[in-house]
Amino acid sequence: MKRVPEKSVERLLKYLELVKEKMSKGEHFVFSHELARHVGVSPVQVRRDLMDFEIEGTPQKGYPVKDFFSQVCGHVKCDLKTKLALIGVGNLGKAILSYFLKRRPNLEITAAFDSDIQKTDRIYCGCKVYHISELASVIKKEKISVGIITVPAEYAQETADMLVKAGIKGIVNFAPLMVRVPQDVFVDQIDITLSIEKTAYFAQKSK
Amino acid sequence: MKRVPEKSVERLLKYLELVKEKMSKGEHFVFSHELARHVGVSPVQVRRDLMDFEIEGTPQKGYPVKDFFSQVCGHVKCDLKTKLALIGVGNLGKAILSYFLKRRPNLEITAAFDSDIQKTDRIYCGCKVYHISELASVIKKEKISVGIITVPAEYAQETADMLVKAGIKGIVNFAPLMVRVPQDVFVDQIDITLSIEKTAYFAQKSK
Repeated sequence: MKRVPEKSVERLLKYLELVKEKMSKGEHFVFSHELARHVGVSPVQVRRDLMDFEIEGTPQKGYPVKDFFSQVCGHVKCDLKTKLALIGVGNLGKAILSYFLKRRPNLEITAAFDSDIQKTDRIYCGCKVYHISELASVIKKEKISVGIITVPAEYAQETADMLVKAGIKGIVNFAPLMVRVPQDVFVDQIDITLSIEKTAYFAQKSK
Repeated sequence: MKRVPEKSVERLLKYLELVKEKMSKGEHFVFSHELARHVGVSPVQVRRDLMDFEIEGTPQKGYPVKDFFSQVCGHVKCDLKTKLALIGVGNLGKAILSYFLKRRPNLEITAAFDSDIQKTDRIYCGCKVYHISELASVIKKEKISVGIITVPAEYAQETADMLVKAGIKGIVNFAPLMVRVPQDVFVDQIDITLSIEKTAYFAQKSK
């Protein structure tokens, strides 16, 4: 299968959420309109996505969840355990640590890092906080593959550089600054302030 | 000017960040390549966006920041104070409250709400936490225009419904569920788990 675009991966992961929920309730089928509603796309989009996976359903019963799960989950490797590192144990970093605690068995924040020695060599929400100088060695030892940046904007680029140097290929960046990374590193940007400002703009326009 | 698409508003708000930074340093001009780098788009895209605002620059000096600021800020109403309500004072909600405390003078979380009476009638990070039953009256009294949803997924839709009923026209939703709202209400979805899962997928692929 050809390289899947970012938006498709997002949809597949969201479809899986509903499919897992159905399976946990003992249900055997899911309709394209249910998937569409869950993800916020059209049923046509759902059917188009699923054609790529050769999952066959019927208009009466929908798609069989077991086939769906094995095909899509196999593709996005949803059962693979991912080890994460979080850099910057401030308010936002702490929130993400406590938010993720036992939330997803396959996503584990294995190590946190900070430059403030008041915060290091402690356990926070079940996660060891190391000094930033230990970043490369811990990432290599623990085989961590994804980094979460929750440092202030002025430190975001150097943090990204350190992560890349340590071999990280995926970064979720909460700092309100676009970080520059080599082409083979994937960065997802979550800019909370921008999102609120944008929403304020459209709320204003709608009045 | 015609209705500006969401992505353009995002870019304009990000351009303004850099422009304000330049102004605070006493600099008078900004180059399109600097704006492009800050936002993560091409200089061509920057110049195309700015043509719409009739801001004129030169290749030697760039764009005058003062003109830039007054034109773009006037358009996106960046100086207008927005009052926000946050619903769900759990880990994530608390983090957002502390994150926003004094961060942006024009974005103020005026009131927080929770259904747990252990959490209500208190001040958290300078913000009063009300019981959820007071939502409509406080939103109307305080003229709040944007709601931030940080409740668990199973309560997200009813929370959105309450916000809409109270007259809210913009919602930032952190719950991992697409909420359904009337057409004149803008929703921005921030799904942190999805973002991390997606990044894990691409990090894996890149190996």
